[in-house]
Amino acid sequence: MNPANQRTAEGILFTDQYQLSMAQLYFRQGIHEQMAQFDHFYRRNPNYGLHEAGYCISAGLEWLVNWMQEVYFHPEDLAYLRSQRTRSGAQMFDEDFLAYLGEYGNFSQISLHAIPEGRVVHPNVPLSIVRGPLLMAQILETPLLNQLNYQTLIATKAARIREVSRAALVLEFGLRRGQERGANAGTRAALIGGADFTSNVGLSHVLGYPPKGTHAHAMVQVFLAMGHSELDAFRAYAECYPDDCLLLVDTVNTLESGVPNAIRVFEELRAQGHTPVGIRLDSGDLAYLAVQAAHMLDAAGFAQTSIVLSNDLDELSIWQIQSQIVDEAHRHAMDADAVIKRLIYGVGTRLVTSHGEGALGGVYKLVALQKDQVWHPAIKIADSPNKMTNPGLKQAWRLYDQRGQATADLITLEDEDPRQQPQITLRHHSDHSRHRTLHQHELTWIEPLLVEVLRNGQLVYDLPSLDAMRQTRIADVDRLDTGVRRIMNPHIYHVSLSPALWDLKQELLQAMGK
Amino acid sequence: MNPANQRTAEGILFTDQYQLSMAQLYFRQGIHEQMAQFDHFYRRNPNYGLHEAGYCISAGLEWLVNWMQEVYFHPEDLAYLRSQRTRSGAQMFDEDFLAYLGEYGNFSQISLHAIPEGRVVHPNVPLSIVRGPLLMAQILETPLLNQLNYQTLIATKAARIREVSRAALVLEFGLRRGQERGANAGTRAALIGGADFTSNVGLSHVLGYPPKGTHAHAMVQVFLAMGHSELDAFRAYAECYPDDCLLLVDTVNTLESGVPNAIRVFEELRAQGHTPVGIRLDSGDLAYLAVQAAHMLDAAGFAQTSIVLSNDLDELSIWQIQSQIVDEAHRHAMDADAVIKRLIYGVGTRLVTSHGEGALGGVYKLVALQKDQVWHPAIKIADSPNKMTNPGLKQAWRLYDQRGQATADLITLEDEDPRQQPQITLRHHSDHSRHRTLHQHELTWIEPLLVEVLRNGQLVYDLPSLDAMRQTRIADVDRLDTGVRRIMNPHIYHVSLSPALWDLKQELLQAMGK
Repeated sequence: MNPANQRTAEGILFTDQYQLSMAQLYFRQGIHEQMAQFDHFYRRNPNYGLHEAGYCISAGLEWLVNWMQEVYFHPEDLAYLRSQRTRSGAQMFDEDFLAYLGEYGNFSQISLHAIPEGRVVHPNVPLSIVRGPLLMAQILETPLLNQLNYQTLIATKAARIREVSRAALVLEFGLRRGQERGANAGTRAALIGGADFTSNVGLSHVLGYPPKGTHAHAMVQVFLAMGHSELDAFRAYAECYPDDCLLLVDTVNTLESGVPNAIRVFEELRAQGHTPVGIRLDSGDLAYLAVQAAHMLDAAGFAQTSIVLSNDLDELSIWQIQSQIVDEAHRHAMDADAVIKRLIYGVGTRLVTSHGEGALGGVYKLVALQKDQVWHPAIKIADSPNKMTNPGLKQAWRLYDQRGQATADLITLEDEDPRQQPQITLRHHSDHSRHRTLHQHELTWIEPLLVEVLRNGQLVYDLPSLDAMRQTRIADVDRLDTGVRRIMNPHIYHVSLSPALWDLKQELLQAMGK
Repeated sequence: MNPANQRTAEGILFTDQYQLSMAQLYFRQGIHEQMAQFDHFYRRNPNYGLHEAGYCISAGLEWLVNWMQEVYFHPEDLAYLRSQRTRSGAQMFDEDFLAYLGEYGNFSQISLHAIPEGRVVHPNVPLSIVRGPLLMAQILETPLLNQLNYQTLIATKAARIREVSRAALVLEFGLRRGQERGANAGTRAALIGGADFTSNVGLSHVLGYPPKGTHAHAMVQVFLAMGHSELDAFRAYAECYPDDCLLLVDTVNTLESGVPNAIRVFEELRAQGHTPVGIRLDSGDLAYLAVQAAHMLDAAGFAQTSIVLSNDLDELSIWQIQSQIVDEAHRHAMDADAVIKRLIYGVGTRLVTSHGEGALGGVYKLVALQKDQVWHPAIKIADSPNKMTNPGLKQAWRLYDQRGQATADLITLEDEDPRQQPQITLRHHSDHSRHRTLHQHELTWIEPLLVEVLRNGQLVYDLPSLDAMRQTRIADVDRLDTGVRRIMNPHIYHVSLSPALWDLKQELLQAMGK
């Protein structure tokens, strides 16, 4: 796509056609400026086929806000809409509507509350709440979902990889397998959710992080094609980067050529006063090779060097590698723990595509509409009680128990404050028979989850740094029960409704004959 | 991301750090301007878990070329590289290297051959061949893979959905579930591979297509929240778009409310001389509902209206819906074929994320390096014979049998021309024992697959229109045996090596002790 087309395709027209059809209908009905509220939430945690997430990590907000503040209907966009024709050949969008879009077609009247990036989030809790004139709030649906769903999906996958990787470095390598330019959003989300660094140079620059990476098989192949050897290639690399020497050892034969050659070069570096960094394994039985390579490196006095693993890694394969090392290391008189502690994980395809579940099913549902200064709650009914939306203007809270652990998220009506209630009733969001009561003395903290981000289009929130988002994520994950953190069969974290919200929902359902 | 950062993150630094580390090493070794050739290919067709593809559809080339012609190392990019530090605190990239990048760091010396967009392609056949100075050809790896892998993945998925959808319209609805801005590339690839239209407004504009879409549940919810009815909402829509009236009928209750209300509005439209377009079903048992809705529409004299289905559709669910309609229609005295023929498929999440296989494993491998004006073939060896690369400068051909059907793809050395050979030996690309011989009289056509796209950075190829790409895809798919087109357990299409290429490969493997 050339740059001019890219500006068009990523501007305000980065939305679905039906948003514009509906927008004109609202305009025609004279209800386009009625205040509306939409909730953005997802209904279930990602299920990766063999295993499922116990929580998600919120991400994408800052870039969404950047986008909202940037875009509006340019004359060229309006000219395109003017050119659209109905089946009968008439102009699809009328001049008065286009004139309105030209003047008011931007997000300057939109207010946004959201759960900050890096936070642990759960199904059915509003991750963001949009309030504004119906017409522009409607058009926002598609770009909001596009930007928040994907980054949340990837931050969540990264958090799972972080969970199994424990204290090890995790490097994001997915640029070549991401969805075109969206890979940059994937990189960012991975860094929020659990990756320490990325190989993505441009995005590292933008975020102020050093990118990571050393060399590929191609470098060794170049030397071989010129009639030189793997050892020559390693020496050239060591000469170029004597203090950052990390060598990919599987181009020829890992244990017979790569590791011995790397050790030879490391010895030369050591003699010159440099500290070699390590090796990378990118094929074969990674657990077996890691143990063998560690054995050889130890014997040569390089017990401090790292071993980077890569090749379609994800949370399950990392887990498997660790288990296999625990099983096998002692057979080679190696300390499994020491081998695992020197590992670094390079994670690409399966992180940036969220292997096993390639999309987060986040939705954006009308929950209230203002008429004559009064808010009217709206509900989306569905065949399954679990898919009925929660109506009305709402707040979301997190309840921490005596141990300081998160015990439930509570969704209330906007004017409720559970901090002021001596006892708090938690209702299951769809099952009538399930509820429990907590007393204040059972809780240490009731935390409001949503912060005000945009007030009439103006940023009223200090966007946190990436480091701050990571600290948030670490703190939030720490406050989850280990059962919820499990990467397989996690405990289901409680998301509850207040009795007032529950009653409102039942009232609306009854009114609709459900 | 703000626009300035986006320019940085999508410019020449849209690559992996190790490409730059290697680039400096090549520069330091004085080999950075040696001509190199890299092949881009993939090793196996997508396997979606329960089913697998028999072929892929090439896509992404035009946008890659646009990108290559646009980017270079800006002073700001160089300043960032200058700021990178080694572990010892020294400058990672030296001034002479940065000065070189500032002067020559662009793709103006790169030549590119590629298989055009929309063509059927197969594993191990080079989809694109890059020739140019080693340094810049190396840096191109990541962005080339990023852009070609994803669009080829999605064009392939779209072709499968097209296959099961037969002559029905297929609409792409995936913008909200794609990977952020990469969703635009997904839309484009879907249109190349098999979707007829998209809901994506901006990209429709850029490509010169009319976007498709009518209304969402939200519109009906708005009317309900204001105390009006679904019928009121439908009437408002029909008034606004009398000749394009397609109504989403599952907001309240599909068969009890949505379809009867739609029919009432259609009757009103008919009385006014308008032709209603149809209904959309977005939840529930789509096959059952389609049969019932068709029955009701027929009874009201609207047999010509369309029924759009959406909700996590992909090639398997469309297939299932069709089978179920065949089974069930006669019970309701309906003609299954007539019901199926009025269906339109709206395909979102599972198309744009390539459900079941979220990445194409395309790779970019050094195959030759020039030294003293002589090309030296390069090979990447691997544990598995199937992963060994095919070395040297190559051509790719497609052989058509007496029926005009594609019977095999043949990879030869660059100076071979199978059209000049009385008989053609086809060798399996990794299995020594498998080969066959074809005589010219058994073939109707031997077609070179790769076209010259860039010569020293200059476009020397007429980029085809999207319509032309689609015609190419339709023609190519038609020339595949039905066994290869099957969406489950497809026949394996033959990709063969010429004896000369096979011998070169064996020679190199022996020289490396394999």
